[in-house]
Amino acid sequence: MSRDPSELTAAEAAAQLRSGALTAERLARACLDRIDARDVDVRAWTFVDPALVIARARELDKHPARGPLHGLPVGIKDVILTRDMPTQHNSPLYQGHHPKLDAACVSLLRTAGAVVFGKTDTVEFASTGRRALTRNPRDLAFGPGGSSSGSAAAVADHHVPLALGTQTAGSVVRPASFCGVWGLKPTWGLVSREGAKTNAYSLDTIGWFGRSAADLALLYDAYDPDPGAVAPLAMKGARIAVCRTPVWDQAAPETRKALEDGATALRLAGAAAVDFELPASFRDLPELQVLVMRAEARSAFLADAREHPGQLEASLQAQVDNVYGYSRADLLHAYDVAAACRAEFDRLAASFDAVLAPSAPGIAPEGLASVGEPTFNGLWTLLHAPTVNVPGFFGPHGMPVGLTITGPRFADRQVLAAAQAMGKAFGL
Amino acid sequence: MSRDPSELTAAEAAAQLRSGALTAERLARACLDRIDARDVDVRAWTFVDPALVIARARELDKHPARGPLHGLPVGIKDVILTRDMPTQHNSPLYQGHHPKLDAACVSLLRTAGAVVFGKTDTVEFASTGRRALTRNPRDLAFGPGGSSSGSAAAVADHHVPLALGTQTAGSVVRPASFCGVWGLKPTWGLVSREGAKTNAYSLDTIGWFGRSAADLALLYDAYDPDPGAVAPLAMKGARIAVCRTPVWDQAAPETRKALEDGATALRLAGAAAVDFELPASFRDLPELQVLVMRAEARSAFLADAREHPGQLEASLQAQVDNVYGYSRADLLHAYDVAAACRAEFDRLAASFDAVLAPSAPGIAPEGLASVGEPTFNGLWTLLHAPTVNVPGFFGPHGMPVGLTITGPRFADRQVLAAAQAMGKAFGL
Repeated sequence: MSRDPSELTAAEAAAQLRSGALTAERLARACLDRIDARDVDVRAWTFVDPALVIARARELDKHPARGPLHGLPVGIKDVILTRDMPTQHNSPLYQGHHPKLDAACVSLLRTAGAVVFGKTDTVEFASTGRRALTRNPRDLAFGPGGSSSGSAAAVADHHVPLALGTQTAGSVVRPASFCGVWGLKPTWGLVSREGAKTNAYSLDTIGWFGRSAADLALLYDAYDPDPGAVAPLAMKGARIAVCRTPVWDQAAPETRKALEDGATALRLAGAAAVDFELPASFRDLPELQVLVMRAEARSAFLADAREHPGQLEASLQAQVDNVYGYSRADLLHAYDVAAACRAEFDRLAASFDAVLAPSAPGIAPEGLASVGEPTFNGLWTLLHAPTVNVPGFFGPHGMPVGLTITGPRFADRQVLAAAQAMGKAFGL
Repeated sequence: MSRDPSELTAAEAAAQLRSGALTAERLARACLDRIDARDVDVRAWTFVDPALVIARARELDKHPARGPLHGLPVGIKDVILTRDMPTQHNSPLYQGHHPKLDAACVSLLRTAGAVVFGKTDTVEFASTGRRALTRNPRDLAFGPGGSSSGSAAAVADHHVPLALGTQTAGSVVRPASFCGVWGLKPTWGLVSREGAKTNAYSLDTIGWFGRSAADLALLYDAYDPDPGAVAPLAMKGARIAVCRTPVWDQAAPETRKALEDGATALRLAGAAAVDFELPASFRDLPELQVLVMRAEARSAFLADAREHPGQLEASLQAQVDNVYGYSRADLLHAYDVAAACRAEFDRLAASFDAVLAPSAPGIAPEGLASVGEPTFNGLWTLLHAPTVNVPGFFGPHGMPVGLTITGPRFADRQVLAAAQAMGKAFGL
């Protein structure tokens, strides 16, 4: 018996849509059915209009010209504007907010033939504040991580094969790790962030979730203005840097074990998995990322704070008010250290086929109070490096733990190819 | 006889509004009358709704709580979203485009009590392509410069005391120089660019025009989340760096004379005006700014190009298509050189009270075919440095030439104080 279309990866569905074995409408209906059955528990979505989805799918089925994402359902984190759906940022200040405008990253999905499926729940403004109501589909007693909570859970639970998120610290890679799905935060600047809520200019990046490396690459190709392909990476003879990062002391046993098991699997596949320590100048990057994020959030949320005096959520207001006491000299210091480290990391990483690192301190936190910590992500976000979460490892309660594959800026395709080969070595 | 309210600077009008000598409605009506009389020739505006303006002014006149910009008319460059006015980017693709959304910089004007007056004409998307229809109010045979053409002309011609622009290369400082008004491009990142059309993330900056240094400071204070004041700069004993920049060979005689005359005036006022040469590592910054702008414009305009195949204006499509052949390694090289120079410039500029430089190669071009060159601006934009155009000099045909005052990142208030003192020394 053939699989339900909702179970197909994006790449598998794309092949069936191309061959005519599957229609956009049948795939959309399978996804809607899955959401109907599961979202009462998972709560990944803040808005889905089945009529809108079916109308779009039918229109695509009639359409002779097929874009590269033809017929593929994509969930959209609800901090990203969609002209035909509300965008509410999980903020009480934006209830019913519905500008008739697509973010650039949504417009590009539409022109590539995707079905913009609905809006997924998020931590307030993709920053701090209200948590998404989403639960981890692996075990509803656990959280999905944040801030792209709904997008990660929706892909993990087969509601949609693909979903967009945003990452300013670890908001794509961390929930991907917690939910056991693939996630890509591409190089900073690759995808226009126009129409996605601003949090921190130097860090904000549109990213996405899928259920295979090929899924991530499909969306990557839709966003990169340059067509291009890289050869698959052969694990035999590959050189992989195993980087514990300056925050290794915060890794729980399951994360330590995942990195060890991952390195062992690579060696068994014939790769040289070499311990790689970042230079001393990188030591403060995790905390400098936090500084840049909070300092830049001041101008990002100032208009909201002034427009709704006393009503902005307290932790967001605290950022505007700079309760952390960062000076502008502190911010400039962070900018300059980060810039020097970016160039240095590109040089260092170029002598490896990829860099392997932890994706999160451990499994997802229990309950919904915590979205987990972006401890192992902020460093790479500040470095503007392309970063993939590869799932495939597990910790207590059978909950997923992922590993991060990264590399130099704009080496996104190489990083994706390495992630694909490494995922295979991990048994995916 | 008292001056017509449209002739008041923003700072003068603010004082009269505070004292009750002027109402917001009377000021608004004077500005509308001026637009009515003059804009048939100057063509600074793409949208003004007098009823909307008067309603807002009346509401402010009734309002007990007065914001810092209470009653001040502000023009908005038409690449910046306004919830109650169309935003058309001077692009045929956006005719009638009207998302019900304020850019963050517009929302902050409203909460500070300003009257958002209307939309000003712009070069297409604040990039290249269609020119504004605006003429230079000093002499209609000349252009106003771009891309913030309408905003500069509207302030120069007393249509409004203040107007917002954007700068990615020289789109604030250059038209300010050509039109003989004050302009500020603040430090990169100070003002949220959310809701302003993206051109290049590393460069795009919201800036503004006024008719005095105090006007620029009024808006600056509305945007900086930190209140603060700096002491006025005494010219006697001040140390001013006179920087010809690496593109000095492109300065026309009137620009050379303005810089000489400016330095002489500072010396007469008791300042040490010291020749200051940028280090050799800065030599390529002007062309690296062009590279970053064009390379980043690719992702900025990709969605427009894909949504309207074959319809995007040719020079914008050329950027998306990377006809310049820049590689990503070229872009990363530019990022890394610029980042190193930013830190270096902060150090070098800190030993002066301000840096004085040309604002433009010469006077405005005749006719409307050319918007002039940002030759002398891109360098400072790439350095993220706060930059003020100080008017007061003149070239052929009596057309204005301005000078640039700049300084370290986030030294905006010091740069404004220096510009005020230097403007006084220049006889303003």
